Amino acid sequence: MTSDDSPAREGDAGLLTPVSAGSPAEAATGDGAVLRAMLDAEAALARAQAEAGGIPGRAAEAVTKTAGSGRFDARGLALRAGAGGNPVIPLVADLRAAVAQLSPGDEEFAHRGATSQDILDTALMLVAARTLDLIGADLAATAASLATLADRHRATVMAARTLTQHAVPTTFGLKAAGWRSLVLDAHDRVVRVRSTLPVQLGGAAGTLAAFEAYGMEGEGLVDAFARELGLSAPELPWHVLRTPVADLAGVLAFCAGALGKVAADVLVLSRTEVGEVAEGTGGVSSSMPHKRNPVRSVLLASAARQVPALVSTLYASMAAEDERPPGAWHAEWSPLREALRLCGGAARGAAVLCGELSVFPERMRGNLALGEAVGGVGTAEGMVARALGRGVLGAPGG
Amino acid sequence: MTSDDSPAREGDAGLLTPVSAGSPAEAATGDGAVLRAMLDAEAALARAQAEAGGIPGRAAEAVTKTAGSGRFDARGLALRAGAGGNPVIPLVADLRAAVAQLSPGDEEFAHRGATSQDILDTALMLVAARTLDLIGADLAATAASLATLADRHRATVMAARTLTQHAVPTTFGLKAAGWRSLVLDAHDRVVRVRSTLPVQLGGAAGTLAAFEAYGMEGEGLVDAFARELGLSAPELPWHVLRTPVADLAGVLAFCAGALGKVAADVLVLSRTEVGEVAEGTGGVSSSMPHKRNPVRSVLLASAARQVPALVSTLYASMAAEDERPPGAWHAEWSPLREALRLCGGAARGAAVLCGELSVFPERMRGNLALGEAVGGVGTAEGMVARALGRGVLGAPGG
Amino acid sequence: MTSDDSPAREGDAGLLTPVSAGSPAEAATGDGAVLRAMLDAEAALARAQAEAGGIPGRAAEAVTKTAGSGRFDARGLALRAGAGGNPVIPLVADLRAAVAQLSPGDEEFAHRGATSQDILDTALMLVAARTLDLIGADLAATAASLATLADRHRATVMAARTLTQHAVPTTFGLKAAGWRSLVLDAHDRVVRVRSTLPVQLGGAAGTLAAFEAYGMEGEGLVDAFARELGLSAPELPWHVLRTPVADLAGVLAFCAGALGKVAADVLVLSRTEVGEVAEGTGGVSSSMPHKRNPVRSVLLASAARQVPALVSTLYASMAAEDERPPGAWHAEWSPLREALRLCGGAARGAAVLCGELSVFPERMRGNLALGEAVGGVGTAEGMVARALGRGVLGAPGG
Amino acid sequence: MTSDDSPAREGDAGLLTPVSAGSPAEAATGDGAVLRAMLDAEAALARAQAEAGGIPGRAAEAVTKTAGSGRFDARGLALRAGAGGNPVIPLVADLRAAVAQLSPGDEEFAHRGATSQDILDTALMLVAARTLDLIGADLAATAASLATLADRHRATVMAARTLTQHAVPTTFGLKAAGWRSLVLDAHDRVVRVRSTLPVQLGGAAGTLAAFEAYGMEGEGLVDAFARELGLSAPELPWHVLRTPVADLAGVLAFCAGALGKVAADVLVLSRTEVGEVAEGTGGVSSSMPHKRNPVRSVLLASAARQVPALVSTLYASMAAEDERPPGAWHAEWSPLREALRLCGGAARGAAVLCGELSVFPERMRGNLALGEAVGGVGTAEGMVARALGRGVLGAPGG
Repeated sequence: MTSDDSPAREGDAGLLTPVSAGSPAEAATGDGAVLRAMLDAEAALARAQAEAGGIPGRAAEAVTKTAGSGRFDARGLALRAGAGGNPVIPLVADLRAAVAQLSPGDEEFAHRGATSQDILDTALMLVAARTLDLIGADLAATAASLATLADRHRATVMAARTLTQHAVPTTFGLKAAGWRSLVLDAHDRVVRVRSTLPVQLGGAAGTLAAFEAYGMEGEGLVDAFARELGLSAPELPWHVLRTPVADLAGVLAFCAGALGKVAADVLVLSRTEVGEVAEGTGGVSSSMPHKRNPVRSVLLASAARQVPALVSTLYASMAAEDERPPGAWHAEWSPLREALRLCGGAARGAAVLCGELSVFPERMRGNLALGEAVGGVGTAEGMVARALGRGVLGAPGG
Repeated sequence: MTSDDSPAREGDAGLLTPVSAGSPAEAATGDGAVLRAMLDAEAALARAQAEAGGIPGRAAEAVTKTAGSGRFDARGLALRAGAGGNPVIPLVADLRAAVAQLSPGDEEFAHRGATSQDILDTALMLVAARTLDLIGADLAATAASLATLADRHRATVMAARTLTQHAVPTTFGLKAAGWRSLVLDAHDRVVRVRSTLPVQLGGAAGTLAAFEAYGMEGEGLVDAFARELGLSAPELPWHVLRTPVADLAGVLAFCAGALGKVAADVLVLSRTEVGEVAEGTGGVSSSMPHKRNPVRSVLLASAARQVPALVSTLYASMAAEDERPPGAWHAEWSPLREALRLCGGAARGAAVLCGELSVFPERMRGNLALGEAVGGVGTAEGMVARALGRGVLGAPGG
Repeated sequence: MTSDDSPAREGDAGLLTPVSAGSPAEAATGDGAVLRAMLDAEAALARAQAEAGGIPGRAAEAVTKTAGSGRFDARGLALRAGAGGNPVIPLVADLRAAVAQLSPGDEEFAHRGATSQDILDTALMLVAARTLDLIGADLAATAASLATLADRHRATVMAARTLTQHAVPTTFGLKAAGWRSLVLDAHDRVVRVRSTLPVQLGGAAGTLAAFEAYGMEGEGLVDAFARELGLSAPELPWHVLRTPVADLAGVLAFCAGALGKVAADVLVLSRTEVGEVAEGTGGVSSSMPHKRNPVRSVLLASAARQVPALVSTLYASMAAEDERPPGAWHAEWSPLREALRLCGGAARGAAVLCGELSVFPERMRGNLALGEAVGGVGTAEGMVARALGRGVLGAPGG
Repeated sequence: MTSDDSPAREGDAGLLTPVSAGSPAEAATGDGAVLRAMLDAEAALARAQAEAGGIPGRAAEAVTKTAGSGRFDARGLALRAGAGGNPVIPLVADLRAAVAQLSPGDEEFAHRGATSQDILDTALMLVAARTLDLIGADLAATAASLATLADRHRATVMAARTLTQHAVPTTFGLKAAGWRSLVLDAHDRVVRVRSTLPVQLGGAAGTLAAFEAYGMEGEGLVDAFARELGLSAPELPWHVLRTPVADLAGVLAFCAGALGKVAADVLVLSRTEVGEVAEGTGGVSSSMPHKRNPVRSVLLASAARQVPALVSTLYASMAAEDERPPGAWHAEWSPLREALRLCGGAARGAAVLCGELSVFPERMRGNLALGEAVGGVGTAEGMVARALGRGVLGAPGG
């Protein structure tokens, strides 16, 4: 055990967000990852500019090498970000100083013609793309587990419940097929939006004028920048046309909600009095060691409760005045990262939850007798079969 | 002048929502429209069931005729909705009573096998579809006006502004092209989601069992129901798989934000000290008759501030337990309607605003001299031309 | 049955908000009530100005009489509100025209020196005050019923549940005492904020200059205006210092959440498998007549899900630029009214729910055996007794 | 420069939240501070229990000494928090292990009878109290600077602006007095809620039974626990009666909004075309070194845009079922911390901003000529004087 509380560093360690702590998405969205993405953007810009003949190839190499050196200090940048309002300004200063050491005179070629927002917006799209890849994989794994459950229990009769009361019977297979359908909807939206995430490049006010002043054709430069980073090239600079952020917002809210639906059902079905499912590895309690809590579902539910509000801030930031708004842009960064992180943690949790879920058909039959649920479930099996015919967008055979 | 305040009726007349008062979208989303949509759904269900051989054709005709009779009382239904928690329950009672008058014995065929949620969800999708059609048309008109502005002012130089300060120059044409791009993004999303809006049909717990009990094949019945209403047929009943509502939520938040961006810019550029644009017909003031206020933009801004929060409630409702959740479903209705109405009012306002906007190029040049903005705008003209090459999704040539 | 869907009027009848339909709070917050409050404000202003010697007493009488005549048309005002952005501008025109008919020449004394915001802000405070009075009474009634339940069941043992699982035992009395404590917290906040609600009076830009130009001492006029309406007199005009709206926002979110807690518990305890409580008059189902749904709790839950988002819009509107912001003010009206209405409906519903709740002690004991809950509940009885010692703020003996 | 991106630790360094980076409130809300507060709570509980005769004094000393040893690893706890859903469970394990090393056999006395929520809720109240103290001091300093500005400029005439247009004249002193009034409203609410923040102590299900089983009288123990920590003793355990969190939520939203109002005005008045005020030390731009941006106001605005949504999540969590809800509790932690941090950063920024603000009276007079604003400002000076008579709640002479 070592102390976390040195005065030099008061970073968050994930203590209050167990849903994502330790997950790949947490790592992909942390300040370290954001810093790396900003440096990746600077390096890609330099290479794209060298390709366009705007700066020497030697300079692009120096920027790339420096950006990859791991010499940059996220905390120091954070502390200096206040002066200009964003972390790119001190980062460019440090980057240029480091390039000057490596290749004196080439420092002027770093960040050439770009504005802070070009780098930070592009970096956040990189972070989003990398996190969405993780989320997409976990959603696909979740859907696969749910397909197994749906198939296995296509005829497992249980009580449907409406407004907390037993309604007519249904089958657990149909419930699991429904969860899968919703998870696939989330998956499809994740895959689709990920493929559209663009670089941002416009210069001081989005006119590309600064690049052309240096002899670089703007449109071609944007294309090359996008190719370097595996992102798409936008129709126009989107510094104040926030389609990419808004589309991400919608997908993240959808994702959190879809997983929240699964969790909400598991929580009901896990109740002591219901007991129809149980998490594979129940949670422990500090005061009651005999208890087995549906902890993964609880944490999924906690994410589903937080993401919609974060997303509302992102949507509200679309109404961004001028060529850079005084506040709306800055208000996006933390909610976007937090929403990505919560969804990423939730997707990982859901993959484990659905892979390990225990189902108790006898208990389902027993509970049916409690209510007055009557009616056939003959249709459910066919519905499950049809629903399972749906593939995964972007997957082989999908 | 007649009194609005009779004790018998305390309906809202739009007094506190001037952004939508009197707009087609207001009419398309009011309780009268919701009531008509519920009746349309009941009638379509009866016809689909008759087609499937589940009920007599004569009964379907009686239901259709009764549903179209205008005999139903929204206020009375609202007052009786509390007993069961939704307005369909008393509506079905009234519908059956009226069918019994017209065609005694056929009342049992109305609403056969359906549950309240089937009708209300389908009705809200109809309301959404009809309102989105209006919104789509207004967004297309807005985009057309913006194309004209962008083309006319592609070389009209003005100050770009970042963080409230003059930055390098840009052109008004590029700004208008950017607005158009964002409005087209909204339009494309509106058109796309409108084409996916599904009917809901599942019976008491979404198993279709009740219909099959009456000898109707569920899947085919859903298809016929969808055809009757011009909506799509869902993969599965979505009573607790809220993809359609979530997708609508995202599109509405996007739409409000896109129009809010235009408004935010017009508000800045209309400032007394800036004076670069003016609304064609400025608003009046009760205390200062000489003032000309940018009222349309103000009202667009008011919508952009309200919709994200409403949408957060819709996304939060995705985490809906059981086969009908105790609260999450009921919490969707009013925010969905309100978001549709606000977006519809805003789209109409934007179409007028952008069609009438006055632009003052001399003032733009004059303001440029205030700052120290330097740099070329030669790239902007090409950017405008490229951006204007984009067509409208779903439009001829789009 | 009469048709609601005339083209002349598309007002909302409460079809999508069963939680408040038919409640006193619905009537107190409808457009008719808002219109009345605006007219009350105009009349009170005229009387206060007459008292201050600023206008003739005869004119104040004419304004008062006209304002009370019920001749004003909320729908017509709504349609004309768009031109200036708020409904007061056409209202003043109509008011002056009507005064001119009654007492020719006195029309100039109506709305003298005031701005639209003075009237609308004051009217919304009146609406809030009248609705909070209703809410406060229903919360007090709810607390009284809960005191009875807590006292009756202070020793009724039941399972406490944590993270959906049985924990150690508790008593239903302690649970009811906790509900009461939270409801009293809401009540105390409602009573406190109600007593602070101020009139707004500042003239065009909040300087009181227009009144003094007419020879009326501003501060004294504000005091007289407040006395006429039973509201408080603010320290400064609050046209852009939105303390009253923010404080209302917090209280309404609190109120909805407190009642949402009671509902959340009733919903769990009503589950078919749990069966420890039941609403006195359960809801009916259109597809399953044998079902008894906990409908009041469902509707309370629907309100608790909507109010926090509405309130976030109100808080966001505090950041209001200038002396009247272009959008933030206009964005308050509808969410404030809707939050008042939802809380008012929920409070009425809670009063009925808690007055009629059925409690099944044998079922509680039976369920205890399902889990492994062990431990004493001897402390609970004392906790209940102490908690019940708390009185109601502002009530006799409170 | 050292690397932040070791795989072992991906903590956030504040890179995306420049409004709070480096502020005392950031340190007071970081995971290190949360960890210290949890340990403070465990130590205080042990001492309170020793005082009550429930555990040996020697054990309380051992727990206190161990808790203060700085041996605990926030990151490790975060990683282990997922198993049980909160960080207290692994913390108690580590604490007991460490006590066992120091004073073998006394480990059983640590955390005796408590549940995780007792410790985490109490710790978050401690974190809130410490942060509110910082916020309160910064709000008082801000108000003092604003009093100076208001007094100095009580007769400095400027244009009032409504809906972006010049209205009648006002004075900058009245504007500053209004800002101060709103900041004092925030201050008063911060001071008031800070004085009410309670400890949480109830044991596994809030019945205090576990403590009484160990021979400790519950009520007295709660009082002693509160005294140890300088918090208040609640009427009832509030594990699912979230009054303290809701009250905090409201105060934080108010605080962010009040500071957002000041920022919104400074942003307008700083515009290149307006130029009536300037931040003492303007921000720098990476692409345009000549620019001076109102960066502090931009960051205040970014906080004001984020806090309302975070607060909506907190209010929504009031509807918490059972004796510990599966998700609503867990969803509070991160938004509460983030709202505290944003408000703390904003309050610090506002104190600097208002202490350094440059005001340009000549520019104000010059701009007045642009519009047609007419009318007297004689009343404003008296309004400023009256407003400045208001003191600070809880301050000497307040």
